[in-house]
This record gives sequence, structure tokens and C-alpha cells, in this order.
Amino acid sequence: MTKRVKYLLRESDMPTVWYNLASDLPGPLPPPLHPVTKEIMGPQELGRLFPASLLEQETSTQRWIDIPGEVLDIYRLWRPSPLYRAYRLEEALKTPARIYYKYEGVSPAGSHKLNTAIAQAYYNRRDKTERLTTETGAGQWGSALSVACSFFDLACDVYMVRVSYEQKPYRRSFMQTYGARIWPSPSTHTAVGRQMLERDPRSPGSLGMAISEAVTDAMADPTCSYALGSVLNHVLLHQTIIGLEVKAQLRMAQEEPDYIVACVGGGSNFAGLTFPFIGDNLQNPQGRSPRLVAVEPAACPTLTRGVYAYDYGDTAGMAPLVKMHTLGHRFVPPPIHAGGLRYHGCAPMVSALLDQGRIEARAVPQLATFAAGLLFARQEGILPAPESNHAIRHAIDLALLARDEGTEPCIVFGLSGHGHFDLSAYDNYLAGHLEDMTDAEERMGKARSQLPAVPAEEENP
Amino acid sequence: MTKRVKYLLRESDMPTVWYNLASDLPGPLPPPLHPVTKEIMGPQELGRLFPASLLEQETSTQRWIDIPGEVLDIYRLWRPSPLYRAYRLEEALKTPARIYYKYEGVSPAGSHKLNTAIAQAYYNRRDKTERLTTETGAGQWGSALSVACSFFDLACDVYMVRVSYEQKPYRRSFMQTYGARIWPSPSTHTAVGRQMLERDPRSPGSLGMAISEAVTDAMADPTCSYALGSVLNHVLLHQTIIGLEVKAQLRMAQEEPDYIVACVGGGSNFAGLTFPFIGDNLQNPQGRSPRLVAVEPAACPTLTRGVYAYDYGDTAGMAPLVKMHTLGHRFVPPPIHAGGLRYHGCAPMVSALLDQGRIEARAVPQLATFAAGLLFARQEGILPAPESNHAIRHAIDLALLARDEGTEPCIVFGLSGHGHFDLSAYDNYLAGHLEDMTDAEERMGKARSQLPAVPAEEENP
Repeated sequence: MTKRVKYLLRESDMPTVWYNLASDLPGPLPPPLHPVTKEIMGPQELGRLFPASLLEQETSTQRWIDIPGEVLDIYRLWRPSPLYRAYRLEEALKTPARIYYKYEGVSPAGSHKLNTAIAQAYYNRRDKTERLTTETGAGQWGSALSVACSFFDLACDVYMVRVSYEQKPYRRSFMQTYGARIWPSPSTHTAVGRQMLERDPRSPGSLGMAISEAVTDAMADPTCSYALGSVLNHVLLHQTIIGLEVKAQLRMAQEEPDYIVACVGGGSNFAGLTFPFIGDNLQNPQGRSPRLVAVEPAACPTLTRGVYAYDYGDTAGMAPLVKMHTLGHRFVPPPIHAGGLRYHGCAPMVSALLDQGRIEARAVPQLATFAAGLLFARQEGILPAPESNHAIRHAIDLALLARDEGTEPCIVFGLSGHGHFDLSAYDNYLAGHLEDMTDAEERMGKARSQLPAVPAEEENP
Repeated sequence: MTKRVKYLLRESDMPTVWYNLASDLPGPLPPPLHPVTKEIMGPQELGRLFPASLLEQETSTQRWIDIPGEVLDIYRLWRPSPLYRAYRLEEALKTPARIYYKYEGVSPAGSHKLNTAIAQAYYNRRDKTERLTTETGAGQWGSALSVACSFFDLACDVYMVRVSYEQKPYRRSFMQTYGARIWPSPSTHTAVGRQMLERDPRSPGSLGMAISEAVTDAMADPTCSYALGSVLNHVLLHQTIIGLEVKAQLRMAQEEPDYIVACVGGGSNFAGLTFPFIGDNLQNPQGRSPRLVAVEPAACPTLTRGVYAYDYGDTAGMAPLVKMHTLGHRFVPPPIHAGGLRYHGCAPMVSALLDQGRIEARAVPQLATFAAGLLFARQEGILPAPESNHAIRHAIDLALLARDEGTEPCIVFGLSGHGHFDLSAYDNYLAGHLEDMTDAEERMGKARSQLPAVPAEEENP
């Protein structure tokens, strides 16, 4: 009897709904506040930036939301994605643990980000948007939105943090191949970018600056909307197809997971994998529930070291205030290679779950994540994205613990994307040029002291 | 009723044998000749470079050859690979043709090359080899062998054409991630490399030089063998799992193909997809047979413009003489971006099939292949390797012809790999810097005039 390596669902068994965790949460989330007036913001105030259908999803409490047929047609190009049993990794670790991983790198954009990019492009097209703007740092999100816009004939402008634009020319080329226009941010293409360049002509840029440019660009053009790749409820919603598939695949494998592990930056990858399991537990609190572990970089320890408070989503304080785990909106993460995890805050929904004790968080240092990624690549073949290496690291640590303690847990982790565009990071690691960043402590202190003052009654509505 | 996009075989339906076309060919192939004595070479004379089990496969006439269990275990990491129906591409072309593509880019190394790399690493490990050497140009083969060696704990030294080594740093990093050592060729690591560097310290290198270095390195170390990524019979054999899967997938789709299209350089990708279909036709000549089209670059038109004659496999004339379609071993292809198709000759078995009229060949210019690849990426999502773009180009041309003529053919093409490491080529194309190479004509004339003289009785044994 040969070992089964992959658990593949048939196309006809692919989920046709997204799962909305808001339907099962005991109460509503603290509402977003206006960045200037600090008053509660309704969907109508966000309507200038996002199409109505996405804003409806943002506040929906309906449990199941139908995935439109045109979105399903495109999902089928790579979904259902495989769940793997990591036999070779288990053997290398000499662990009695059973390790599974869900691989989202099979998407043409190379990561889970395409799940929401396709949905956002579809709803924007339906609501008569002609062009989308966004920002990208590491490039995974910009790549996904570029591919999605090419499918739905939308123009796409991506503001790419200048230092990434220069360091990752192939990420830029990838997006251009799908017809997107890429602007190194700060750019001369927007007024706000020109102002930034006036102040500092050699600015390396930041995600905060790029957001400002993308938002400004979208606001100035009535045919244009803005798209965000994480944090917001509707983005997390679109990713739940990952966890819904995993549930079906674990049934095929006749497994009940003890641990579900995913890396977390803005939170959409973690949410996508875990929310359907959290929903089961909320609906049936007496049932068996896996431990759900969010893994973040020690250099940007939002969930493990941040505070749960109202803060701005962006650096400049232009975005709404949301209640979330945050290191302070002025926190600038050290230049670690998992660019997708370099965010000062975390999705409000993921933050609330941590606050309620429904999920756990762990922080891991950079060098240990690359060591884990390399071990994984040499055993399982796939070269992981540096972000995904965080989940791999913790899964390996759990498996080693199981070996030492003689337990036999079932560990499932999310492999959010491949590392084909991150080889300069691996290069640096192999050459011994990478370091664990130790200055996060000092940055955190400074940034936290600048948290905005928010009226108490609105903090606990 | 939703459209089915992917045809996926279950892991348990993956072929467990390779198909050996030599069993069904009407006669034996012209034998390889010694490069100096020009006498017929037996397997024993090649035994210094290759392990016995691979040499046995090289000359076997057994129809089905069992795939070892350990090879199957690793194949299962990405196989069976998907067969896609290209609905979106068909729609964009407004063609009544039904277009399918077999995608080999799902392998962790990114192309079909891993099919033979795994097999070669396995047999070498079984026959006590401790280290493998090889050459690589574009990098697909070096990447595949690096991954395969990491699976079987073999040391791996890759001689990479120096100009590629410098232009494609991420290819190098990818191979290093799996533990391979990469030498820019000509290198100071071998005596022959040092001689080349003495003659020209700034030599950009060539595939011929890299082969010389890899062979010299392997010959000098009794624990070491040499591995080749195409051309040889056993390499073609290992790729036949592609076509065997496609046959099963077309049965699922209830289709009989009218055309099967694949790009051809050394010939292993074309052979892998088509040999099982050719076998059917040889076994049952009265049956319906698809037209089998090998597509090559106009800048390196081995099958369409070369002669069928004995020639050296390498530039320096150190490798055995084989009867094949060749542009002359001194032919240096223009620097087109489909590096995997820049070879002066073609596999003896593929060449014999062309000579017998069992397959067809077409040559396409570079710019047209990139235009096809871009159209494909924007419709189907996947960014193809420049080599694969040759097959896409011809498939599109056939589909457009069908539209004009009002026919409804079923067209199947091989998508041999993804283009994630070829983005500088797409960059150049999008920037308008690519050209169709027009100097092939002159190069061909010169190179052909240097074909070796071979005794007539051995040319037609």
C-alpha cells in the first residue's frame, strides 16, 4: 500500500461559498473611527474608495456568502489547492507527529493573495470600476492584483515601495507582464508622491507612503477604486475558501488536527486557513477544537508584543482608526525579508480573536525561519516564501517537541506561497549575511508612545 | 453545468511504467560511433560516465519499464500533473478549436526536467554513485538535477555557462538552495576549464565548454557520474510519463486529439508528450493518429533546416557521434531567450522519427513566441517559460487557422515549464528590445561545412 502524498478535491467538490466568521462571533467588532473626527464611520463614508458590493461584505453578518460563478470559473484554474502529507519532512525530523500543509503557491500569482484579488476585481468590474490602485511591498499582493485585473479587463496601477522596486526587478516585470503599471513610490505620478519627493528626493519609500499614493490616485478619479490585500473583513472572508477546502481534505485523510499553524502579517492568510475551524468551535463549543497558532516575526511582534487599542491603519494617519493589536502606527519594522509580515498592526477580526483567547500567537526570529525553509525545500521540494517559513518553523518546533515528549499530534500548516521571487533573500542567508533583528524593542517603545487618544466610550462601544 | 477546467488523475491512477518507443520502432537506430576511431560504441564504453542501470535503459527494447517505487514516491509530490482545457484562450481567439495543455511547471523545479532528474538520481544512488556533474545553460536542467540530488543525498556540481551565471543570479541561488555547487564555466575548478580561461580569460562560456568541464570532472573521480538532461534514449524514456498521463486525461475529457504540439530543443519534452501516441500508431497503423508537431526556434532550426547525418553531440568533438538532425556541431545559435532550445542537434530518436515522416516540424521566430506567451498568461494566468512559448505559438496558429477554415480540431500542447526565472526576457520583450535573429542562415552554412566524415557502411549499418 503506497503512501498518499496529496489530498486533492475534485473541481466539483470545490467550495462555492465563503464562510463569514462575523456571523458566529458573540458580538460585533469595535467599529472603525474617522481618522480626524474620531467618530464612528459607516460604510457610506468608505464608499468613495470601495465598490458597494465589497462594503456590504465588509459589514455582513450572513454566515455563508455565495462565490459568484465567474469567480469560481477562475478559481478553478488552480483550485482546489492541494493538501500535502509531509512524509519526507516527518522522516527527516524523526517525529511521530503527522504533518500536513496546504499549498497556496499553485496559484498563477504564486500565493494565497489571488483568492481575494480575483473576488475584488470581479466585484469592482460588476460595480463599473474601470481601474484599481493599490500598494505593494514584497510584491505578492501587487502580483495577485495584476493577474486579477488582467482577467477582468481592469486597468491596474501599483505603487511599489521604491526600495523593493529597485531590489526586486522581477516582481515588477511579473506585474507588467499582466499589463499593470508599476510606480516606484514615492512617485511623481501623484501630488502626495511629489510632495514626499520634494522633502526627500532619495526616499526609499514605505508601505505607508505607497498607501497614501494609491488612495490619493483612486480618490481623484471617479472611475477608479482602491484595493487592499489584507486586514479588512471582506479580504479575510475571500480567503476562507482555504480553510473550507482543508476541512474537506482532512476528512479524506481521516484526520482531526491538533494544531493549525499559519504566518500572520495583516492577517488574511491566517484567517483564511483558521476561520472555518473557529466557526465550528463557536457553533459547537463542546466539540474538539484544534489549537490555532499565528506565527509572526520577532522583529515585528504585533500580536505577541503589541497592545490591543485603536490605531491608524497607515503611517500618516489618513486611514480610519481600527481597534487592533498594534505596535503603533509609527513603528517601522526592521528590513527583514518576509516583507509581507512587516505591518505594525493586524486585522481587527484576528486581533479580537486573540483578545478573546480563541487563538494563540508566537514570534520567531528570522534566521530560524530560513533554516526551517531550507530544510523544508530539501525534503519536500517546494521552495517556500520567506513569510511561509514562519509557519514552517513553528510546525517543525511542534513536531520536535512531539518527538521529545512522545506524543503523536496532527499538525496542519499553511504554505502561503512559493519563494521564486525571494531568491536574493535565500542567497543572503546561505552567504551568512542575514541577521536576527534586535532593534525592534527600541522601535516599539517609541512607536507605542504615539498611539492616538480615542474617547473611552468609543473604545468600548 | 459548469465547465471543467482541469483534468486531474488520482494519485493511484498515476502511470507506474515508462513507455519505451524503441520496442515498437521498425528497426534499431543507427548506433553511436566513437568520436576518434568512428567505430561503433557499445554500452560498456560509455560505462565510465553513466551507471549500468541507465546504460541498460539506453539500449533496452522492452516496451514497458517499471518506475521504481522510490521514484514514484517522489513523482507524487507533483504528479499526476494537470491537463487544462484553455477555455479562456479559446474565447480570446474566437476559435471553434478545443485547446488543451499539459502543465509540467507544477514540479518543484518548475519544468518537465525533474521527471528524468529524479530517475537519474535514483539509479545513480542505487549504483553507488556519490556525486553527479552536469552542465546547464538556461538553468532548467541544473535546477532539476539539484532538486533531485537533494532528495537522494547526492552531491551535485553544475557547470553553468558563465554568461547565464551572471545574467540569471536567481537560477544559481535556486540550485544552491538545494545544496548544489555551481561553477561558472569555464571555471578554475577543472583542468580543461583552466585551459579555456588561459586562452580567453573573459570567455562568456558555452554549453559545449560546460559539457567538457562536467565530463572531465566526472571522469577524474570514480565515485562520480555525469548526467545529461536530454537527447539520450533513457532521458526521453523517463519523460514518457507525461504522454501516458495525457492519454488517460484525454479519455476523461472524451477527446481524441487532432494535433499534439510541443517545443523541441534536445527533444526530451517533445518525446515525453508524443512517444506514447506514436507507440499507439506503430502498434495499430490503421487507427486514427494525431498530427505530431515539433516546434523549434527559427534562430536554431535543427529539424526544419538541419541535415540528418552523423555529428558530435558537443562543440569540441569529444562526445560520441550520433546520427541526428544537426546544424553542425560548430553552429553557435544566436542568443535567443529560449536557452533550452539552443542546441545544434536533436535526439537521435526524434530525428529518426522525422526522417521516417512520423512527425512534423515547424520553426517560429522569437518575437511571435513572446507575443503568444503574453496572450496566454493574460488569459490562462500561468506565465510560461520562453521555450514553452514556441508550442503555444503554434497551437494558437492552428486555432486561428481553424477559425478561418471553420474546422473544430482538438489541439493538445505541452506547457513544459513556468517562466518565473525568465522575467528579464519578458522585460526585454515588453520594452521592445527583443529582435528576431536573422543571422542564423550564415551561421548554418559555416557550421554544416564542418560536419565530420563518417564511413558510409557505418552511416547505414
